[in-house]
Amino acid sequence: MAAERLQDEAAADAAVAVTLELMEEMFPLCRSITGDGVRRTLDILGRVVPLKRSEVPSGTRAFDWDVPAEWSIRDAYVADSFGNRVIDFRAHNLHVLNYSAPIRQTMTLEELQPHLHSLPERPDAIPYRTSYYREQWGFCLRHRDRERLAPGRYEVVVDSQLRPGHLTYGECAITGSTPGEAIVYTHTCHPSLANDNLTGMAIAAVLAQAVGAGQPRLTWRFVFGPGTIGSLTWLSRNTDVLPRIVGGLVVGLLGDAAALTYKRSRRGNTATDRAASLVLQHDHPGARIIDFEPYGYDERQFCSPGFDLPIGRLTRSVNGGYAEYHTSADDLSLVRRDSLAESIRAAARIVSLIDRNRTPMSHVKGEPRLGKRGLYGDLGGSRPGEFEHALLWVLSLADGAHDLVAMAKRSGLRFELLDRACAALEQVELVRTIEAPSTVGERRQS
Amino acid sequence: MAAERLQDEAAADAAVAVTLELMEEMFPLCRSITGDGVRRTLDILGRVVPLKRSEVPSGTRAFDWDVPAEWSIRDAYVADSFGNRVIDFRAHNLHVLNYSAPIRQTMTLEELQPHLHSLPERPDAIPYRTSYYREQWGFCLRHRDRERLAPGRYEVVVDSQLRPGHLTYGECAITGSTPGEAIVYTHTCHPSLANDNLTGMAIAAVLAQAVGAGQPRLTWRFVFGPGTIGSLTWLSRNTDVLPRIVGGLVVGLLGDAAALTYKRSRRGNTATDRAASLVLQHDHPGARIIDFEPYGYDERQFCSPGFDLPIGRLTRSVNGGYAEYHTSADDLSLVRRDSLAESIRAAARIVSLIDRNRTPMSHVKGEPRLGKRGLYGDLGGSRPGEFEHALLWVLSLADGAHDLVAMAKRSGLRFELLDRACAALEQVELVRTIEAPSTVGERRQS
Amino acid sequence: MAAERLQDEAAADAAVAVTLELMEEMFPLCRSITGDGVRRTLDILGRVVPLKRSEVPSGTRAFDWDVPAEWSIRDAYVADSFGNRVIDFRAHNLHVLNYSAPIRQTMTLEELQPHLHSLPERPDAIPYRTSYYREQWGFCLRHRDRERLAPGRYEVVVDSQLRPGHLTYGECAITGSTPGEAIVYTHTCHPSLANDNLTGMAIAAVLAQAVGAGQPRLTWRFVFGPGTIGSLTWLSRNTDVLPRIVGGLVVGLLGDAAALTYKRSRRGNTATDRAASLVLQHDHPGARIIDFEPYGYDERQFCSPGFDLPIGRLTRSVNGGYAEYHTSADDLSLVRRDSLAESIRAAARIVSLIDRNRTPMSHVKGEPRLGKRGLYGDLGGSRPGEFEHALLWVLSLADGAHDLVAMAKRSGLRFELLDRACAALEQVELVRTIEAPSTVGERRQS
Repeated sequence: MAAERLQDEAAADAAVAVTLELMEEMFPLCRSITGDGVRRTLDILGRVVPLKRSEVPSGTRAFDWDVPAEWSIRDAYVADSFGNRVIDFRAHNLHVLNYSAPIRQTMTLEELQPHLHSLPERPDAIPYRTSYYREQWGFCLRHRDRERLAPGRYEVVVDSQLRPGHLTYGECAITGSTPGEAIVYTHTCHPSLANDNLTGMAIAAVLAQAVGAGQPRLTWRFVFGPGTIGSLTWLSRNTDVLPRIVGGLVVGLLGDAAALTYKRSRRGNTATDRAASLVLQHDHPGARIIDFEPYGYDERQFCSPGFDLPIGRLTRSVNGGYAEYHTSADDLSLVRRDSLAESIRAAARIVSLIDRNRTPMSHVKGEPRLGKRGLYGDLGGSRPGEFEHALLWVLSLADGAHDLVAMAKRSGLRFELLDRACAALEQVELVRTIEAPSTVGERRQS
Repeated sequence: MAAERLQDEAAADAAVAVTLELMEEMFPLCRSITGDGVRRTLDILGRVVPLKRSEVPSGTRAFDWDVPAEWSIRDAYVADSFGNRVIDFRAHNLHVLNYSAPIRQTMTLEELQPHLHSLPERPDAIPYRTSYYREQWGFCLRHRDRERLAPGRYEVVVDSQLRPGHLTYGECAITGSTPGEAIVYTHTCHPSLANDNLTGMAIAAVLAQAVGAGQPRLTWRFVFGPGTIGSLTWLSRNTDVLPRIVGGLVVGLLGDAAALTYKRSRRGNTATDRAASLVLQHDHPGARIIDFEPYGYDERQFCSPGFDLPIGRLTRSVNGGYAEYHTSADDLSLVRRDSLAESIRAAARIVSLIDRNRTPMSHVKGEPRLGKRGLYGDLGGSRPGEFEHALLWVLSLADGAHDLVAMAKRSGLRFELLDRACAALEQVELVRTIEAPSTVGERRQS
Repeated sequence: MAAERLQDEAAADAAVAVTLELMEEMFPLCRSITGDGVRRTLDILGRVVPLKRSEVPSGTRAFDWDVPAEWSIRDAYVADSFGNRVIDFRAHNLHVLNYSAPIRQTMTLEELQPHLHSLPERPDAIPYRTSYYREQWGFCLRHRDRERLAPGRYEVVVDSQLRPGHLTYGECAITGSTPGEAIVYTHTCHPSLANDNLTGMAIAAVLAQAVGAGQPRLTWRFVFGPGTIGSLTWLSRNTDVLPRIVGGLVVGLLGDAAALTYKRSRRGNTATDRAASLVLQHDHPGARIIDFEPYGYDERQFCSPGFDLPIGRLTRSVNGGYAEYHTSADDLSLVRRDSLAESIRAAARIVSLIDRNRTPMSHVKGEPRLGKRGLYGDLGGSRPGEFEHALLWVLSLADGAHDLVAMAKRSGLRFELLDRACAALEQVELVRTIEAPSTVGERRQS
């Protein structure tokens, strides 16, 4: 599959350039879980990868949740008695509480204070705060600025609307040659924050582009939607797809300086977990593999016990794991070119392993005679080569209880070599792949 | 449940005072597997905790065993030709072989010797020896004294009786609010030995008192009976109870200086084992957790393959694990106040965890919306608190394969916090507890 | 069983002497996968152990393979224009490519070169090369000699025949007292190579002799046949035996200086694997236990997924694991007396453990009263002895899920002690052995 090519240095560099361009263009938009910011973001991503857009009406049920009213905002500010905007949405879209209800009122500083949010411990950063499900208004500002607010009366304006509309998400589905499916999900709801999550959106787009350029075995669905309500909405509208899902990733927070990190699925030993573990251990010394915990991004939904999908998360920092998290300091300067490149290479190989992974079965008793099929040297007595070893390993483990990822782990041979050996054995009909979505070897060692 | 309060320092101190009083009063009595020594011991314990007494007739079958004849003893001595008692039961009740047959005879030292038991390697200690199932007579004495016995004729008297009577045990059952049951068993058959097992009896009594002061979820049975034949007799008369047993402890040897020790059940991974492991690892640095072995006290019976109950043993020294074991040197001076206090706190928390442990199930797909149920903050963007984390963990693991003890282990959160989170989720009907005695996660990793 | 006696030093020394004699006599013969070299080898081994010989016609199907034409050879040489034999089969039978097609022709050195095999990196050793399944002719020689070959014409003669005949193997079956069976397989196809595999043949013979001198529980089949096609042929003719096989070993390469090595079966946790692990860990510090890999000798066939038998390999070096491997340097000087002795002792104890291993079941509830059956001391109070401990362990684990090997591992007691305890409990009918070939505890922890 074509995602593999992103492992080449040149291709990865080109992909990094694309992601940086996308991120710069997307950065200024005021995104939220609904609204035009998301639509304009999907327009930008859609230039790299074809996106089928879904508009889901407010009030639509998604399991225990409902799609909320759509939020739109034109302007927001707090002005002092001289008319100076002391807090101004136009200066930074984090200044308004995301999903803030409208208000237009004059009030004292004392009345205003309960609606202000700032970080005493980071006085120069504007915090990112939201209130999707309780209607309230508010502003976020640098603590240093807050302390300078003089007593007096202020004009407070949030020119927003909360009214029935839609939740918007985009999906790029690339049809595979076998019935299995896989998902890459990234959240689109954060406003001007760079690492969280312009990096995830841009990388998902270049991955989708690469996968689409080849012929994957699995059907791959790259979904760009808001956090929590977005994944739940997608899940509720794709219940027929779920039984066919054999792997996938939630991607996000992929550009900062923290170590590349894979967070296991809840089951902990799915094919995705094992594939990611191979990739990180072999190619990314210093990368971390961490256990599932229910705090995080959309892996929370995909891995909830009601779905329990084989989906992990590729990230660098975890939620709350870096000082700039959810503040205005998470800007484009935080994103490192080499971090992006490493994240892309790792994501591409994990996607490739998930795609190529399969469970071959042999029905021969004893070793088959490879020589008569042209797969083994003519001359006996010397040690067979690497490819012959790979053939022997695939045959030895072709018992229906080992997929190629398990074979790579047990043999110590590289996945791609075993993949080629398996293909050669399929060619001469010595093994046959079990096409059904496989959960082989996925029982959790609790 | 009220056992938790024994973890408070003040309450534990008060409990230690009670145990010390009980032990002093019980110490002089000549106990055995049957007889009035046991009855008087139960009288003393009965002042702390209400005991239902059972009297099981001699000859009653208990699986492969029979309740033996009842033993009573009034006096026993060996007197020299001047009438001086050179071995005297009245000086120490260990001097007579426990369950000794009666004898009244004059004999030479040579004839006497085969009936004497002493410890050359501990010449100042009287050994504790028994002969419950082969009728014989005998005396135990300090080796130093034995060596001083002059040749000559001796008057040998054991004024005992072995005749049909009863085996006596006491039980305090505290009815729980759910169908599950648990046992605490301690052996009552040892005569004037302090650590083994006045400590077990006294601690079981204060535990029972504490559990009885609250409303446990499980029905708790505190059983005070002789070793081996006592537990077998109890098991044979309670076969209807056994399928409902979800946990329990054998307690004994809890006052010496050795490290607090938990001996796993035979299965090794029962809820009791996992609960004890949490308690010892979190609260008792330096405590030991050891594997089951079939040499020990009544855990031998509860864990035999025919029952295989989820019952471990809380102890300090193991059998034979301290120099004073089964000798007159195991007296009240061996028992340390701080050891008792630590043992009580550990036992109380293990009992509490066994009692509160349960397996919640969720049937929601995806994360439920906690905010609308008042269980989550209104404002998004900052890291949720400890209680919110506990809610997420309980929901994430509420798949019927994890009990609260497993959740505590996997999440690293404190059991009591998860218990509160689970209760909150039960309250709003997001999880439902599987009430059937659970063996979730108990498969042994052999 | 009588194999145990080989663990005595004197018996092991005598066995070493026998193996050395056998090896010296077998060394000069030109063996191959078929032909008279094998027949004469079996004649020699047959003097130590009775061998039933099978002659399987060329063309007989063995799963994916066919028995090839039989190869016989009288002479082979390359002579220069003066008639001097510059390569001479009579000097060393490795000089001819094993299974070489006949040729009689004069040619230039240039024409000869593609048919010559030598080792530039080991210029003084003749390599061992074979071509069983592609008809070709060739010679093997020291690289140093090859470099001295002058341009010119050479007379090239291989006086061999490839025509329908038979594949020959020998088998010594010793009938056991229970339905289970076990195999020891060793390959007989290597010509004048000492460690690989005169050591395997000789040691299998002395093992068979020892087992035959006693009354084993299992039926033991010692099979002496060629590599790959030999084991496949045996398997294809013994499909009725396979379901009864509970253990076994492939033996070979047992005399060199490398550490004693056990290579696990493919399943990795069979009774054979666990028995070998006990033996090596207890008696052979420094020995290695390695995982299965599909490159090796006949364990490749026994452990292929179509059979998946509980058979490991006892070896010292692995294939290709020593510098002299498959060259004329693997001669008798490479074989060390102390290595042979250690290999024999280990093999004998592993065979003995496989044979004595069984799964006892108890149906008693609680501990049975051992005293009334004469199995426990009369006097209580002191720590029971080692044999009493072994009785308690066997009873405690007699749940049908533990065989004696598992009991030895879990208890830390010696297998032979548990075997005696089990026999004593069988005697008094407290346990009953499950006679069916057992796969207890053999699930692989992947």
